Amino acid sequence: MRFTSEASSDGVCEQLFTLGEIPGVLWTPEGAVGTRPLIVMGHGGGQHKLAPGIQAHARRFVAECDVAVVAVDVLGHGDRPRDEEFDRLATEEQARVEAGEELAPLLAGFQEFVARPTVTEWQVVLDAVQQLEYVGAGPVGYWGLSLGCGLGVPFVAAEPRVRAAVLGLCGAALVSAEDAAGITVPVEFLVQWDDERVPRDQSLALFDAFASVEKTLHANPGKHGEIPGFELDSTLRFFSRHLA
Amino acid sequence: MRFTSEASSDGVCEQLFTLGEIPGVLWTPEGAVGTRPLIVMGHGGGQHKLAPGIQAHARRFVAECDVAVVAVDVLGHGDRPRDEEFDRLATEEQARVEAGEELAPLLAGFQEFVARPTVTEWQVVLDAVQQLEYVGAGPVGYWGLSLGCGLGVPFVAAEPRVRAAVLGLCGAALVSAEDAAGITVPVEFLVQWDDERVPRDQSLALFDAFASVEKTLHANPGKHGEIPGFELDSTLRFFSRHLA
Repeated sequence: MRFTSEASSDGVCEQLFTLGEIPGVLWTPEGAVGTRPLIVMGHGGGQHKLAPGIQAHARRFVAECDVAVVAVDVLGHGDRPRDEEFDRLATEEQARVEAGEELAPLLAGFQEFVARPTVTEWQVVLDAVQQLEYVGAGPVGYWGLSLGCGLGVPFVAAEPRVRAAVLGLCGAALVSAEDAAGITVPVEFLVQWDDERVPRDQSLALFDAFASVEKTLHANPGKHGEIPGFELDSTLRFFSRHLA
Repeated sequence: MRFTSEASSDGVCEQLFTLGEIPGVLWTPEGAVGTRPLIVMGHGGGQHKLAPGIQAHARRFVAECDVAVVAVDVLGHGDRPRDEEFDRLATEEQARVEAGEELAPLLAGFQEFVARPTVTEWQVVLDAVQQLEYVGAGPVGYWGLSLGCGLGVPFVAAEPRVRAAVLGLCGAALVSAEDAAGITVPVEFLVQWDDERVPRDQSLALFDAFASVEKTLHANPGKHGEIPGFELDSTLRFFSRHLA
């Protein structure tokens, strides 16, 4: 794990790093010492580790919950080289979602090509970050919407260190049913009631599929990207409750 | 408005009163002086103004939000005389809900017999309570689940003093579509995902029908009465946001 830059503002330290080929960013409280909870964030499709929504959430998680937060660029995103196969699969999937088509065959390819490698990458990142003295092996949370949910579902299902997850803006057709049923930790699941990209019944079906005893669905009016600001307050309290 | 008893504990003053034929209870901060927000609570079917759930919520609203809370016994409930017509309608409605039957004809009778008089009663209670120096004409909230939602929808639609409402455990077939579409204030709407009394699609259809720009649906696993404790925390924040 090689740190390439470091800057601090408002009590939050932001360090860019690379781990092998993976470019990432770690946010921690300025002057942090000792073990603390860690939140892994997965960005949306076409976004990257420093997208405004990711950064704004990460800074509030650190400032208000005294946690560490890590995000990396997903294959084909941010500072990673363009990948034609990824672009082709993503474009196809988006077109089929918008057309309301059967996604299963495409999904299998997407899972194979993106989700499985991403789960492995995020586990390697988690290993490395938890080695740092000022992060350590504390409880882990996951936050990811849209593509960050599609990749987060197999990650949370596979990774026993994750104790709580905020997911959403994603439907049952976009993840494997086995992965969804493999999630047993508390989940806060965000649905946009007028989502132009994810059919409402697909969102409800994904929420239904999680095996978690504690899961809570929050639905608000508006399109895919229009989550109201008060949901971030709710997310902060959710992680405070489960990662303390 | 005639007060018949008064007791204080943990900083909360509880006063029983009658207003004409209506028995009610008013909770206020001990030693309260001056205008404050007022939350009207509607109890569930078969319950009453001092049911444990009502009382526990009211005491936390007062203690944590510095508001006043009022609840009265609905027709046929609590300290009101038994009413054969109400009992017959309620029993019939419950049987039809459980059988998944068409409710429209029954609903019309129920609205006529219970909802319309209840809206008038609650408006009279609101007038009287807001005359008290230690309550005054501050912003008003409404809280009611199950029957408290079925009666609350026409009340909130009719009463311009209500600025925010927590509703839920109720479906579109149990209220008039016109009343639901008449609600424009912020709503937090609670759904039990495995509700044995309200079909899930009916709950979602009622949420859908509110005209509010800000409305948020919270769904949790479990049966009709099994709302998780963290929703009360969320309710407190919702009222704090909108009645401050």
